[in-house]
Amino acid sequence: MFHIIGEKINGTRGQVGRAIAGRDAAFIRSLAASQQAAGAHRIDVNAGTRPDREPDDLRWLVETVQEAVDVPLCLDSANPAALTAALAVARTAPLVNSITGEPARLNGVLPLARDHGCPVIALALDDTGIPADAGQRLAVIRRLMAATRGAGIDDADVFVDPLVMAVSTAGGAAVVALEVIAAVRAEFPRAHISAGLSNVSFGLPARHLVNRTFLALAVAAGLDCAICDPLDGELLATLRAAELLLGQDRHCLAYTRAYRAGLLGPGSRRS
Amino acid sequence: MFHIIGEKINGTRGQVGRAIAGRDAAFIRSLAASQQAAGAHRIDVNAGTRPDREPDDLRWLVETVQEAVDVPLCLDSANPAALTAALAVARTAPLVNSITGEPARLNGVLPLARDHGCPVIALALDDTGIPADAGQRLAVIRRLMAATRGAGIDDADVFVDPLVMAVSTAGGAAVVALEVIAAVRAEFPRAHISAGLSNVSFGLPARHLVNRTFLALAVAAGLDCAICDPLDGELLATLRAAELLLGQDRHCLAYTRAYRAGLLGPGSRRS
Repeated sequence: MFHIIGEKINGTRGQVGRAIAGRDAAFIRSLAASQQAAGAHRIDVNAGTRPDREPDDLRWLVETVQEAVDVPLCLDSANPAALTAALAVARTAPLVNSITGEPARLNGVLPLARDHGCPVIALALDDTGIPADAGQRLAVIRRLMAATRGAGIDDADVFVDPLVMAVSTAGGAAVVALEVIAAVRAEFPRAHISAGLSNVSFGLPARHLVNRTFLALAVAAGLDCAICDPLDGELLATLRAAELLLGQDRHCLAYTRAYRAGLLGPGSRRS
Repeated sequence: MFHIIGEKINGTRGQVGRAIAGRDAAFIRSLAASQQAAGAHRIDVNAGTRPDREPDDLRWLVETVQEAVDVPLCLDSANPAALTAALAVARTAPLVNSITGEPARLNGVLPLARDHGCPVIALALDDTGIPADAGQRLAVIRRLMAATRGAGIDDADVFVDPLVMAVSTAGGAAVVALEVIAAVRAEFPRAHISAGLSNVSFGLPARHLVNRTFLALAVAAGLDCAICDPLDGELLATLRAAELLLGQDRHCLAYTRAYRAGLLGPGSRRS
């Protein structure tokens, strides 16, 4: 089953940042509840604040979101102190977002995930940056998988992120991501593959169209998780259609259920 | 460049059938012109009538459509007498739709296409029907390609149709079609690959959503032609987004041009 991580509680977005600074719990709870209601399987929380404030802010976000939803969280931080503070109050093992091939980040974050029994997102970059081609990204991913296996983390608890870059700045960016997804699916069949979708359309008009079309292509390549906006109805409708077409929706049940619930977007009214 | 064949002039549709029977040229011309204006590279004509009437009806359709558009046509008939009548009045070599592995159809239609210098659509079926699995369909396609090559038709003038069946009746139908597309792209790189899109969603609600999502997946697999409704704005918008993501739209030019022309559908208004 495809795994949806709701992206909306991100302190780098102005309104969310202000809600965190002002401890506007009602606003944060509402953002969390609406994402769960729309089908999110996890809620991402990103405090988006300076390292000295981030432990307090991330802990408050976890506590606040947990008042509103019962799905598990995804802790979006590379700061071991913030992760430690948040892990202390998390009810269910959160997904730790993220480790990379950068030694400091790997050594700072991976032990925390292991010690708390948390799944992890592993980004295909290292201290030399984000490799441009699929082969080099796969090499980084192999080193990351060796590290998670070395730490005793099961492949099924690793969410590999191929890193989706903007097609407006590099025409082959989506192709590279799709190649990485297909290669990871073949080489690490038990690992999850997760991606943020919105980068791909950076700098373009009609971004939602590009995002949802990329999602369909990525699901075909092997993606089984996305950090995205679950309130984007057309995105979710495209996901249901892609699953149906790819033989991942037995007897079209999820698709027809979504249709009956009115979730298949404006397109459904045209048929 | 992706090749769009406008499907709307099909006599098996009630209103079009009545227009053919009543020789309503204005209606047919309007259907042709609107498809060309929406970006169709060819206009399919299907008389949908009994064999004894089809030669007259198809010839009339060709003459009528040619009054309205300057793009070439696609003659949708397996009837050699109707094709002969239509070829006699066609201004530009039409695409002949279609040959199959059925000996009578192959022997009846292929020589006509060869003698008139026409490209052909080759359907992956033979006298035993439509094979259920990709390997058997590919075997039929190999025999068809041997026949077109034997007739002196260049691979670049063959449009292989993998035959897209309904996912509502066979859950793996789209997967089989995608496998055939990828295999034909690899084995016959100069051939075109064309598909009718609407079968895939037969029996489902929100059919347009399924059709356009399938189109994105099929373009990723290697499809470069579709028989479809060019007036379906969201279908064309999805096509532009898929080309962009697959590195087939240098500097995003076609995409941004479509956006400026207001062609990227309702999604464009949400960004």
